[in-house]
Amino acid sequence: MEIIKGGVTAPKGFKAANAMAGIKYKDRNDMAMIYSEQPCKAAGTFTTNVVKAAPVKWDRMIVEESDYAQAIVINAGIANACTGEEGYGYCMETAKAAAEKLSIPYESVCVASTGVIGMQLPMDRIINGVSMLVPALSDTIEAGHAAAEAIMTTDTMPKEVAVSFEIDGVTVTVGGMCKGSGMIHPNMCTMLGFVMTDVSISKELLTQALKEDVQDTYNMVSVDGDTSTNDTVLLFANGMAGNKEITSKDENYKKFKEALHYVNEELAKMIAGDGEGATALFEVKVIGAESKEQAVTLSKSVVTSSLTKAAIYGHDANWGRILCAMGYSGAEFDPEKVDLFFESAAGKLQIIENGVAVDYSEEEATKILSEDKVTAIADIKMGTASATAWGCDLTYDYVKINADYRS
Amino acid sequence: MEIIKGGVTAPKGFKAANAMAGIKYKDRNDMAMIYSEQPCKAAGTFTTNVVKAAPVKWDRMIVEESDYAQAIVINAGIANACTGEEGYGYCMETAKAAAEKLSIPYESVCVASTGVIGMQLPMDRIINGVSMLVPALSDTIEAGHAAAEAIMTTDTMPKEVAVSFEIDGVTVTVGGMCKGSGMIHPNMCTMLGFVMTDVSISKELLTQALKEDVQDTYNMVSVDGDTSTNDTVLLFANGMAGNKEITSKDENYKKFKEALHYVNEELAKMIAGDGEGATALFEVKVIGAESKEQAVTLSKSVVTSSLTKAAIYGHDANWGRILCAMGYSGAEFDPEKVDLFFESAAGKLQIIENGVAVDYSEEEATKILSEDKVTAIADIKMGTASATAWGCDLTYDYVKINADYRS
Repeated sequence: MEIIKGGVTAPKGFKAANAMAGIKYKDRNDMAMIYSEQPCKAAGTFTTNVVKAAPVKWDRMIVEESDYAQAIVINAGIANACTGEEGYGYCMETAKAAAEKLSIPYESVCVASTGVIGMQLPMDRIINGVSMLVPALSDTIEAGHAAAEAIMTTDTMPKEVAVSFEIDGVTVTVGGMCKGSGMIHPNMCTMLGFVMTDVSISKELLTQALKEDVQDTYNMVSVDGDTSTNDTVLLFANGMAGNKEITSKDENYKKFKEALHYVNEELAKMIAGDGEGATALFEVKVIGAESKEQAVTLSKSVVTSSLTKAAIYGHDANWGRILCAMGYSGAEFDPEKVDLFFESAAGKLQIIENGVAVDYSEEEATKILSEDKVTAIADIKMGTASATAWGCDLTYDYVKINADYRS
Repeated sequence: MEIIKGGVTAPKGFKAANAMAGIKYKDRNDMAMIYSEQPCKAAGTFTTNVVKAAPVKWDRMIVEESDYAQAIVINAGIANACTGEEGYGYCMETAKAAAEKLSIPYESVCVASTGVIGMQLPMDRIINGVSMLVPALSDTIEAGHAAAEAIMTTDTMPKEVAVSFEIDGVTVTVGGMCKGSGMIHPNMCTMLGFVMTDVSISKELLTQALKEDVQDTYNMVSVDGDTSTNDTVLLFANGMAGNKEITSKDENYKKFKEALHYVNEELAKMIAGDGEGATALFEVKVIGAESKEQAVTLSKSVVTSSLTKAAIYGHDANWGRILCAMGYSGAEFDPEKVDLFFESAAGKLQIIENGVAVDYSEEEATKILSEDKVTAIADIKMGTASATAWGCDLTYDYVKINADYRS
């Protein structure tokens, strides 16, 4: 597997475009389109929030009921959530407008929105945006990058990644982009993620690969514990790489799954590291667990703890908060058996052994915690299962961004 | 029922004292003692965190196994949590030192600690503190107030309340104090709460009254979602009011329960309103629920949402975040039936009706949200059950306090 440049336009046959539609932001691109020359098998995972945004309902219908999908229209600024029948109607209207320009069925067009909840989309601007997007579609790396920029809200950087690998001498590529900074505590998948591939694979295996992989990637990220109404990951496969279709869990499936996992994990970590106001990516590994579930519960509890996150911001080795967050997670373990380490580019340091502090150097701990990627490793010595969760520190800027997000 | 001045020394026979023991803070009182002239029936509720501080284990033993309790020794600065066998030994040592000076059995002395996790108590200073506390014990209102001040950590104000009522012509008093500002997401009870009463009541009913009431009071408070290792509420009843002992759930029991509830709810609200860095008490009422459990789950989810809390700080009627937090709570409801209102001293305003925004004035909403007590009321129109949760806004100062708490 090779890491290559680009994002959604890296695989064969995928094009992207961006447009300045003036949905809510001024003087910036706020709409994007992804289009495949050939119809795609599509898989999707969506928020578990009872309050589901209209595009989530629309895309689920497309993924589950349409024979194929071929395009995605995305806007930033307004989430089209809590918008009732009217908002759902706008999804269909957007899909129809894109379908007409692209000469494809409207049941093959997904839509995705991110931004403020509760406002209706200004449909004249959306339709106008679609008109600008279609002629601008391009298969260049730059077009993919510009699309990743256009879907940002409070993100500080675009997020994309691509890899390629070989199946029987044929090069297969997986490329993705995502956005997400606040209201990030995915439960099924993250805010918005779009992964394109030219692999040829059965729809059943494509769907299964995505469903399994989001558990270990997007679902292990938390910025603020708020599970969004809009969480969506769409995975399109257009088969244009020309490999023999993957129809069983053979070596080729494993290769594809590995590539997909790399793309998803990198995108998930980019979301965590670019959490609203964040200065550091905070990684929590729980090892020595009895079961995967136990490790997941413990690691997510730590990465979600406001007190722990504030301590990471302060470069403070306040390990008591980590043990405390493990303690209220709901998982059973023996606090008096826990070993805890901090690790970063600056080194690795044991902080507690069997539940009590070892004689570590606070100075060295602070040095380790001052890097922009910081890992806490808790060994609970009960078994061999493990899990990794990603989050970020809690900063003044998180509060600032969210106290006046709408103004 | 009458609201009266004072706190833990308001009921007959209770004394309090404070001392400057230099445990961790400098130049301020950091130890307190509560003492009853007569042995008390004692009830307690404790943290559900798997990581339980040593004093929690000690007090549970006293409450469950001792015939009576008569004194409490409290320190601020160090939590005596994650301190192993050594830390538990210090609880007994503290209780023994107090018992000797007070000439009571050490199995009647509770201890409570709040502050940094993981450090051992400096026992020479604790013992010295106990020596100062015992001769300083006084039944004045001022002594109770000074004790409430001595147990503060990041609290900005002492928290105490007292009420009296009559049973068969005899005046009965309930008075309490508490502390709590960060790491507040009680699950059984709050950080540290001490409620004293001179009522005569059976231990069984005393315990039941407390266990029931914490569900509707302390357990409905969240400052930051972090359930502490030290959460403790102790309720002592010394019987000195002289009423005929309450031994059944009669009218007198109801009167006592009402007084206890008032004291607990007021203390709980003081904790929420004085959350670390908070500028406002944020109250969330869910009405029209199918069951109490559903209303509790929904209201706690909203009051815990970082995004909602940041919006309250910004006086921003960002109702989408409230609906979103209800949506990921785990409780089932129909988002398209929800009515939402904001209410404060500045008025009451409907924001959404049947899941979508009504044409409300943002200006009026901001005015309502600028008060120091703000209420959100969600009517989910499924039944007649309801619940109220209390929290606070999320501010720069919360981050500041917790980024360098240990330094």
